[in-house]
Amino acid sequence: MEFTVSQIAAMLRGEVRGNGADKINMLAKIQEAQKGQIAFLSNPKYEQYIYTTQASAVIVKKDFTPKKEITSSLILVDDPYISFTMLLEEYHKLVSFQKTGIEQPSFIGEHSTTGQQVYRGAFSYIGNNCKIGENVKVYPHAYIGDNVVIGDNTIIHAGVKVYNDTRIGKNCVIHSGTVIGSDGFGFAPQEDGSYKTIPQLGNVILEDNVAIGANTVIDCATLFGDSTFIRQGVKLDNLIQIAHNVEIGKNTVIAAQTGISGSSKVGENCVIAGQVGMSGHLVIANKTSIGAQAGILKTIKDEGEKIIGSPAFDVKEYYKSYAVFKQLPDLNLRLRELENKVANLKREHISLKD
Amino acid sequence: MEFTVSQIAAMLRGEVRGNGADKINMLAKIQEAQKGQIAFLSNPKYEQYIYTTQASAVIVKKDFTPKKEITSSLILVDDPYISFTMLLEEYHKLVSFQKTGIEQPSFIGEHSTTGQQVYRGAFSYIGNNCKIGENVKVYPHAYIGDNVVIGDNTIIHAGVKVYNDTRIGKNCVIHSGTVIGSDGFGFAPQEDGSYKTIPQLGNVILEDNVAIGANTVIDCATLFGDSTFIRQGVKLDNLIQIAHNVEIGKNTVIAAQTGISGSSKVGENCVIAGQVGMSGHLVIANKTSIGAQAGILKTIKDEGEKIIGSPAFDVKEYYKSYAVFKQLPDLNLRLRELENKVANLKREHISLKD
Amino acid sequence: MEFTVSQIAAMLRGEVRGNGADKINMLAKIQEAQKGQIAFLSNPKYEQYIYTTQASAVIVKKDFTPKKEITSSLILVDDPYISFTMLLEEYHKLVSFQKTGIEQPSFIGEHSTTGQQVYRGAFSYIGNNCKIGENVKVYPHAYIGDNVVIGDNTIIHAGVKVYNDTRIGKNCVIHSGTVIGSDGFGFAPQEDGSYKTIPQLGNVILEDNVAIGANTVIDCATLFGDSTFIRQGVKLDNLIQIAHNVEIGKNTVIAAQTGISGSSKVGENCVIAGQVGMSGHLVIANKTSIGAQAGILKTIKDEGEKIIGSPAFDVKEYYKSYAVFKQLPDLNLRLRELENKVANLKREHISLKD
Repeated sequence: MEFTVSQIAAMLRGEVRGNGADKINMLAKIQEAQKGQIAFLSNPKYEQYIYTTQASAVIVKKDFTPKKEITSSLILVDDPYISFTMLLEEYHKLVSFQKTGIEQPSFIGEHSTTGQQVYRGAFSYIGNNCKIGENVKVYPHAYIGDNVVIGDNTIIHAGVKVYNDTRIGKNCVIHSGTVIGSDGFGFAPQEDGSYKTIPQLGNVILEDNVAIGANTVIDCATLFGDSTFIRQGVKLDNLIQIAHNVEIGKNTVIAAQTGISGSSKVGENCVIAGQVGMSGHLVIANKTSIGAQAGILKTIKDEGEKIIGSPAFDVKEYYKSYAVFKQLPDLNLRLRELENKVANLKREHISLKD
Repeated sequence: MEFTVSQIAAMLRGEVRGNGADKINMLAKIQEAQKGQIAFLSNPKYEQYIYTTQASAVIVKKDFTPKKEITSSLILVDDPYISFTMLLEEYHKLVSFQKTGIEQPSFIGEHSTTGQQVYRGAFSYIGNNCKIGENVKVYPHAYIGDNVVIGDNTIIHAGVKVYNDTRIGKNCVIHSGTVIGSDGFGFAPQEDGSYKTIPQLGNVILEDNVAIGANTVIDCATLFGDSTFIRQGVKLDNLIQIAHNVEIGKNTVIAAQTGISGSSKVGENCVIAGQVGMSGHLVIANKTSIGAQAGILKTIKDEGEKIIGSPAFDVKEYYKSYAVFKQLPDLNLRLRELENKVANLKREHISLKD
Repeated sequence: MEFTVSQIAAMLRGEVRGNGADKINMLAKIQEAQKGQIAFLSNPKYEQYIYTTQASAVIVKKDFTPKKEITSSLILVDDPYISFTMLLEEYHKLVSFQKTGIEQPSFIGEHSTTGQQVYRGAFSYIGNNCKIGENVKVYPHAYIGDNVVIGDNTIIHAGVKVYNDTRIGKNCVIHSGTVIGSDGFGFAPQEDGSYKTIPQLGNVILEDNVAIGANTVIDCATLFGDSTFIRQGVKLDNLIQIAHNVEIGKNTVIAAQTGISGSSKVGENCVIAGQVGMSGHLVIANKTSIGAQAGILKTIKDEGEKIIGSPAFDVKEYYKSYAVFKQLPDLNLRLRELENKVANLKREHISLKD
């Protein structure tokens, strides 16, 4: 991937000051950029670096007036930060979409179809009766069971495991080690103290634009026809546990190591921090905000609540209580002192009355 | 897999009303069932659906009397729910046992033996000197190190990693991404602040009928001859940490994201909720019940205790304390008011005495 | 691997009593050792076992005087425990370094180089432009992306996933299922409630002597030229989450299931227990000690602090507060009683004044 400064300026609808023919092959921070790289200057406190940077080009604000000599070419734009972000995205697309073709050995079962421009890495496995869309990347060691559907442009990173019957939408990204569709944790206690396994026969459905981090687990639903749902635009971080029959609503974001127990339904546009635990069979209203390490034991009915603690309640109330918790030994002492004072007072009072 | 309604009725020792020759190839919920599928009606509040369902057959209670016309065939049994569960299990066996044979490429080392009807998926790896029992399934990307023994009917799902010397019993199920036998976390602090690795040379033993979820980790024991034990009938959920030399007693159940530190011994028939943390070298009595997110720092001697909190104590006491915790700012205020009152009282009292 | 008792004595600079020609092929505990195995006696309370053990040899202290007959050969050394540990290490080296060569099928991309005595397991994948050092072990199903550098003697266990551009130092050990270099959790909220993915273009750098457990995740840094750093000698346990742009200082040790949020910098020689959660953008001083399940929301400036709780504060203060927390219902009662007493006192007092 190599562009000239002029090509990049055209892409950003910016104006070149300097040598438009210089070659750019990488993006970098202004403090660290080398020849062949492009950086940006947005925050004035970094201005010093533009006079010493090795960058071949720097994206600057239209009205930027240098105070010293600059060796880099400049690209003048309305908002350097936004322009740089656009470049990042373009670069990312180029990098992530560059892998195509089939590395050998790789495995594909019977009656499975793949779209155009698919990448199937070495040692990737696709079972029977799968439908893999266009531009899908299936990295090495990814396992796709039987009857799985994967939508266009989805990226399945190395070592992801997708069980039978899972449906994955378009433009999803699933990171390494994540498991989708493993059995829900369902066991019926027997009279002798042992447990009998309840067969788990549902599936998992991921809608479009879902992103899932590494080593996360999403269990399948218990019954036929039932699904664990990860709705459109949901973003899950690493090492998250999503139990059977859970539903995560549209555009909800969940941070690392959080666990959602079976059959709970999380609303849309919720923000759930890391290491949160949620009981089963709850319903969480849209736009609920849950603080880190919270334990959720009750349904949340009102939109927009912010909660924390275990069990969780209103975040402001929690911190007020916690402030007093830190003073509890002192509070206990004050109570004891007061008890003594009152006892004395009473004694004196009684003697006074006498 | 396809059965007639009569064949299924025979299996369930039930009686057919309707067309016994209809073909059934799938199980489904009564609200959603289609032609070719079988559903059940147990809870009276779902009765409405039996008059509209597309199911080819519905399992109902012996004494069920329809209020309207029903197009599905009926199978009359003592307990429709139990009968349906039996069918689920049969179906599950059929599905999970259908994979057999050896997909290529797959790897098996020297002096390793496998029983009858084994499935070895493409890209599965079995090391040297392994004994793999009958009907064992080793899914794609599963790694079985050297000197591993796996009992009959055990299922090793895609991408499970089993280190050298592990022993796995009969009828176990291990889900994708789980790691068994990795090094315990043992490091000896050195004078210069660095740590020296203590070699981890023990193994892991899983007894019969153990079920383990996805992305769980079980470390090996430290010394030769020592083992980390997962006893008969234990059920572990996803993303659990079992450290070196731990023992989990018979029929104990542990929910997702819980961590048990080194050398702790958990008793039999315990129920441990999600995100629990346990210190090392503890002994937990049989039938202990531990609430979600609890932190266990002490040995539990008495059977049947129910604990929660971090550090954990009796669950009822914890919730009583937590109820007051939520009112702490108010309590603090009440104490301050009382202090003022008593101070005033004292002042008045003193002036009164004067 | 087989040595004579004399060979082992020479290795330990010890003296043989008994048959120096006996063959030893395994290490074991004195209670359980069999013929062909070597054990040690250090703690006097295990002395009984030396008179009954089947071990071919036992390592004992120089001045050990048997009270009964012993059938095992003895090796007399200054410190039996240290000597046994040395043997353990030697054995471990032999075992872990015994794998060499290339099992087939395995994959290596273009322009990648490997050093001498490398092990590349079957189904291992090495991408393009990688530099793999000497004595490196890449176990089956390990995935090494493009442009990765791995230093000498490093062990990459089965199923580890290493993304593009990662750098791993010398003498590192990474256990199964761990993911290094996955995308940081970066999403920019859009006006319609959806999120736009922020491309993650940095990498991860592991310095020398780093050990990482199983199923841990380390995300890459966000920008080009930036890295997530795991400094020299760091030891990470299983199922840990290290977010983008985090830095873990030299010789810091972190126990299982802990999570460190984006851009936090943890100092050197810190000891962090299990299931700890840390917010983003914090700086943690050297030698900080953090208790299990703690929630860290603030920068720690002073070295050597010991903290716990969520949010965390001084560990002694926390336990004092928690002791009162357990008595809160009682404290509440005492306060109510006192309120009543004071109210009565006041009434009487008023009546007295009147």
